[in-house]
Amino acid sequence: MNQNSKKSALKENDGIEQPDSISAKSVVQIQHFRKRQPSANELITAILNGDKTALSRAITLVESTNPEHLEKANEVIQGCLPHANKSVRIGITGVPGVGKSTFIEAFGKYLTSLGKKVAVLAVDPSSSISHGSILGDKTRMEELVKDENAFIRPSASGESLGGVARKTRESIMLCEACGFDTILIETVGVGQSETAVHSMVDFFLLLNLAGAGDELQGIKRGIMEMADLIVINKADGDNITKAKLAKTEYNRALHLFPMKNSGWSPTVTTCSAIEKEGIDSVWKIIEEYFHLTKENNYFNTKRANQNQYWLMETINDQLKNNFYNNPEIIQLLEENKKAVSTNEISPFAAAFLLLKKYFK
Amino acid sequence: MNQNSKKSALKENDGIEQPDSISAKSVVQIQHFRKRQPSANELITAILNGDKTALSRAITLVESTNPEHLEKANEVIQGCLPHANKSVRIGITGVPGVGKSTFIEAFGKYLTSLGKKVAVLAVDPSSSISHGSILGDKTRMEELVKDENAFIRPSASGESLGGVARKTRESIMLCEACGFDTILIETVGVGQSETAVHSMVDFFLLLNLAGAGDELQGIKRGIMEMADLIVINKADGDNITKAKLAKTEYNRALHLFPMKNSGWSPTVTTCSAIEKEGIDSVWKIIEEYFHLTKENNYFNTKRANQNQYWLMETINDQLKNNFYNNPEIIQLLEENKKAVSTNEISPFAAAFLLLKKYFK
Repeated sequence: MNQNSKKSALKENDGIEQPDSISAKSVVQIQHFRKRQPSANELITAILNGDKTALSRAITLVESTNPEHLEKANEVIQGCLPHANKSVRIGITGVPGVGKSTFIEAFGKYLTSLGKKVAVLAVDPSSSISHGSILGDKTRMEELVKDENAFIRPSASGESLGGVARKTRESIMLCEACGFDTILIETVGVGQSETAVHSMVDFFLLLNLAGAGDELQGIKRGIMEMADLIVINKADGDNITKAKLAKTEYNRALHLFPMKNSGWSPTVTTCSAIEKEGIDSVWKIIEEYFHLTKENNYFNTKRANQNQYWLMETINDQLKNNFYNNPEIIQLLEENKKAVSTNEISPFAAAFLLLKKYFK
Repeated sequence: MNQNSKKSALKENDGIEQPDSISAKSVVQIQHFRKRQPSANELITAILNGDKTALSRAITLVESTNPEHLEKANEVIQGCLPHANKSVRIGITGVPGVGKSTFIEAFGKYLTSLGKKVAVLAVDPSSSISHGSILGDKTRMEELVKDENAFIRPSASGESLGGVARKTRESIMLCEACGFDTILIETVGVGQSETAVHSMVDFFLLLNLAGAGDELQGIKRGIMEMADLIVINKADGDNITKAKLAKTEYNRALHLFPMKNSGWSPTVTTCSAIEKEGIDSVWKIIEEYFHLTKENNYFNTKRANQNQYWLMETINDQLKNNFYNNPEIIQLLEENKKAVSTNEISPFAAAFLLLKKYFK
């Protein structure tokens, strides 16, 4: 059906001609600039010079599914690598509604006021469905987004957690090479993404709300176990007493967990991100952590272990990808999944059948 | 050096000749019987007839690392499969010292007294080092081992958890085809093996000791979360009051966990395996569970899901085995692990380098 049909009830009258809002010459210039793909070396040089546009472009390459881009992205990363790793990486999680954006805005602004360069990244594999439930809307960090010493980038989307995690981790390195010394990684407090983020940061911060007792059940124990610091947000107005109670409650809960390898005892503090109160205390605690773990060398050991972990994870992911995306396997697997459900074939016999096909 | 050298200080005088303790004819017969490998079909027929010797042999095939045996094992399993799956599978875990062997002995004897046929298997990947820390010594189940309606088999050893789990799961099917209607899977209460066992049983029982409070911390939360029933053992003599207290304590702890998909509320009971007290109550609770989950169809859904899980797990394991045992990869991986630790190459670049080599 022709949607422009004159018979449509939705016909629009022709308006009067508008003048161009931008000169024809500018258009050509912009198009030329946009089309011109900077080389890997140009990108590296610009990133090392602190060019945020180049940084954005490089991250776009990292996030691309185009194999050519992947090659170039790897080149850029390899060039940036010697200049990366000089930063602290802080993971920030919390269930929706806890005020993550407000907290990161206040925290980020506080850090830039100390002269730090702050990059905010996100891991949210669900964003392909929710179209960026976190950091999708940069306007939620109005102040920080305008700060020249801050860089905010929403989560890579349309991918598995493994894919998003890889891209975020490579983006961290690019940000570091670009001179950002404090990397904040935001994630939603539900599910597997915390584990992925935990394995790419030096410090893990869990944002919670007051209300005591009952919440303790809502938060997955595993997430609490990963936390180096629990921050109870919205400790303002009528909420202050509740927040203090919650602090005691969480402190007690934290004592039930086994000692951490870092030698650090996880702790609890309160803040009001909206009132910008208690933000300095949060940073003070984090600084203490870095002081301790750099002294006892846990900081470096953890990073080396994380690198090895990601090496293996990437390999394992790709081995699976290669198998499960094989067209012959896809069909055979479907059939065998049904067959094992109804006990027509044992899971092991089915697996060996599929593997035989694959390795032929 | 010739160890039989007459100059050795360890020289032994020749003793007098001993008469054969077994007639020459018997030796020949036994050797002949041992050498003769029954065919897959013979094994299947014997197993379906309830022949425990054939069952043992088939499990030995399953546990073998010889590729020929693997082929034959698969044939036997495939033949037994239509007759398997008619059983209840109960996982039993608990830290060393909790009295698992004594409990399984008392529980198993109680079940055979009800007319059930009980098979006891074990998952203990550590047994290759500890040479069978569990079920290694059948004499710890003196009564049960002599019971004609019981079959006890120690853990397969010398392998990864994945390997042990696969072998145990295949052994379950063989036991079922052999007419065993109640399968008990024992595992040590430390580490990853619980997850593996949890994914192959219908019901998960955690054996604990009284002593209240402090133990709650010793037991991994993840294991408590998996339990359908906590049994506090050694509730006898002076220990009875403590056991009752512990029961209350654990009940309270269980309420903190989220509702189970099975619709079942995990519960706590006490028993004294050595006095054979409370064993009937344990079984009564387990029966209630099976009544509920067969009614709401969770029982079948769970088994179908477990089969699909094991299909995928086996594939993923084998994909990794194939990669990590590749001689070229082994060396390259070692080099790259070092390189990523010192940030000479990014984990992702290193991974892609290795994968390129592998898929060439």
